[in-house]
Amino acid sequence: MHITSLGGGHGLYQTLVAARLSEPSSITAVVTVADDGGSSGRLRREMEIIPPGDLRMALAALARDDADGQLWAQTLQHRFGGTGALAGHAVGNLLIAGLATVLGSDQAALDKVAELTRSHGRVVPVCNQPLDIEAEVAGLDDDPRVIRPVRGQVAVATTPGTVRRVRLIPDQPEPSPVAVEAIRNATLVTLGPGSWFSSVIPHLLVPGIVEALNDTAALKVVVLNLSAELGETHGFSSERHIHMLSQHAPSLRIDRVLVDSDTIRTTAERDFVARAAAGLGAEVVYADLRTIGDDGRATNIHDPSKLSAALTSQFRDAV
Amino acid sequence: MHITSLGGGHGLYQTLVAARLSEPSSITAVVTVADDGGSSGRLRREMEIIPPGDLRMALAALARDDADGQLWAQTLQHRFGGTGALAGHAVGNLLIAGLATVLGSDQAALDKVAELTRSHGRVVPVCNQPLDIEAEVAGLDDDPRVIRPVRGQVAVATTPGTVRRVRLIPDQPEPSPVAVEAIRNATLVTLGPGSWFSSVIPHLLVPGIVEALNDTAALKVVVLNLSAELGETHGFSSERHIHMLSQHAPSLRIDRVLVDSDTIRTTAERDFVARAAAGLGAEVVYADLRTIGDDGRATNIHDPSKLSAALTSQFRDAV
Repeated sequence: MHITSLGGGHGLYQTLVAARLSEPSSITAVVTVADDGGSSGRLRREMEIIPPGDLRMALAALARDDADGQLWAQTLQHRFGGTGALAGHAVGNLLIAGLATVLGSDQAALDKVAELTRSHGRVVPVCNQPLDIEAEVAGLDDDPRVIRPVRGQVAVATTPGTVRRVRLIPDQPEPSPVAVEAIRNATLVTLGPGSWFSSVIPHLLVPGIVEALNDTAALKVVVLNLSAELGETHGFSSERHIHMLSQHAPSLRIDRVLVDSDTIRTTAERDFVARAAAGLGAEVVYADLRTIGDDGRATNIHDPSKLSAALTSQFRDAV
Repeated sequence: MHITSLGGGHGLYQTLVAARLSEPSSITAVVTVADDGGSSGRLRREMEIIPPGDLRMALAALARDDADGQLWAQTLQHRFGGTGALAGHAVGNLLIAGLATVLGSDQAALDKVAELTRSHGRVVPVCNQPLDIEAEVAGLDDDPRVIRPVRGQVAVATTPGTVRRVRLIPDQPEPSPVAVEAIRNATLVTLGPGSWFSSVIPHLLVPGIVEALNDTAALKVVVLNLSAELGETHGFSSERHIHMLSQHAPSLRIDRVLVDSDTIRTTAERDFVARAAAGLGAEVVYADLRTIGDDGRATNIHDPSKLSAALTSQFRDAV
């Protein structure tokens, strides 16, 4: 099994941990570069580099469970404390930025850090330039028909309005050839979970990525979020999440939409979801996917072993 | 041959490159932690860590000449550009700071970075806490008898007055046991060249270091600077450099003082230098030590191969 996982942030982190548990022959993380907040945002404004934060998290997720791998993962993730100019910067972000300048290549820098962490896989930015997202947002004015542009990942993620559509700035970025190859050569591709408008949909807007997804022989699985997020997808149903994919990438073809059993319980709701998935050519698969918290209650975080089992079982059934 | 080199900055860098050329069984750099300028100074103020800059330079000097060693050396030395909060910070300083926090140990962090650079030796801070230097400086007032305290490495290095004496703050820091061991177990110890008041003399003020120097069976060589420095040792003769060592560490015993032949040419001057060296129990050795510049003229930088040859020849004659 050759797994290629598209996404960003915590959603991609959980997916990569799940992917490792399936013990595939290879794992490639194809990572969003649209973040403009926190340490990443400060770095991209200061140095005109791709935001390293999501890439760093993916590297940490893939770090080997031995002393060296874990020491480096912990160091990459370590954030400087205090109240000074460096407070909040993750060491890994600074290291990726420095290596990328010295090596003259983001990919070479990421591959070098992957050596340090004795990585289980490769981390690849979806394209080699920083991207911005701009959303059309309704509900910000008294008149609900007014649509306003909201620019930047942080602004979109925290808008009190309703996001209708996002676009990339620049709108025709060059895809990373390594990312395109990783999709084409995969046998299992995952998209999501994650922040829908900043970590999932942007991949589909980079020219060449949907084509690669439609051409690959891989089983393509969309993993839906376990809950709507405050801000960008507040109040969005699972069905609407799926519709958003079709709306942004009408030609996109997917094989499975993986949904947590507890998230959608009624037959009526499941019918809506099935119809939305059919629009992508996909079947909906339900499975228990939630992490159980210390208090014994289900959380809104994917359980890597459950996700791994669900993905592996779909893969086995498909081949 | 087991070489232990005490110093800091560019002087130590050149000495370590020279030490490598002698192909010893081991090299240990014992490094000053009194810097308060530049990237190091900003980091120690922001994070209360030992200033990493001199340690980073020593690691770069000892990096192996293969692709990996040199890539990491270059990355450690890379300074962020631009005009933002990170401008001027060396990547290696940030990496050492991050690793030291994660590992809870400066020495463990330095040893980890030494693995990356496939280091020819070990880099050891003289003590595991940041130090300040405070100098007694004359000539700052109209009345030449007035002595004023000047605090901090940068302030001392740039004072227009004449430095009479320096002390450490705190004045009784704990020496690094690794540094003490490295002096005791060495067969050749070098002290200098380098900024006399901030990279050389501070070592002698850390309790336990002079005792280790006096106890070790190693051949102990002071390498004099090729020129007085603007600021802290402006106008100081070679003789006065040697006197400064005796003045700050009256019990210190040294075997050789290595002086560039061109620096002191007259018999009268050489007599003064010999007398000053005798105060440390040392013989003066003259050798051609200067790097020749592209214009064919001698520079004020030690030539590593000449320095290596001079040190090796002294070592051979002594054993």
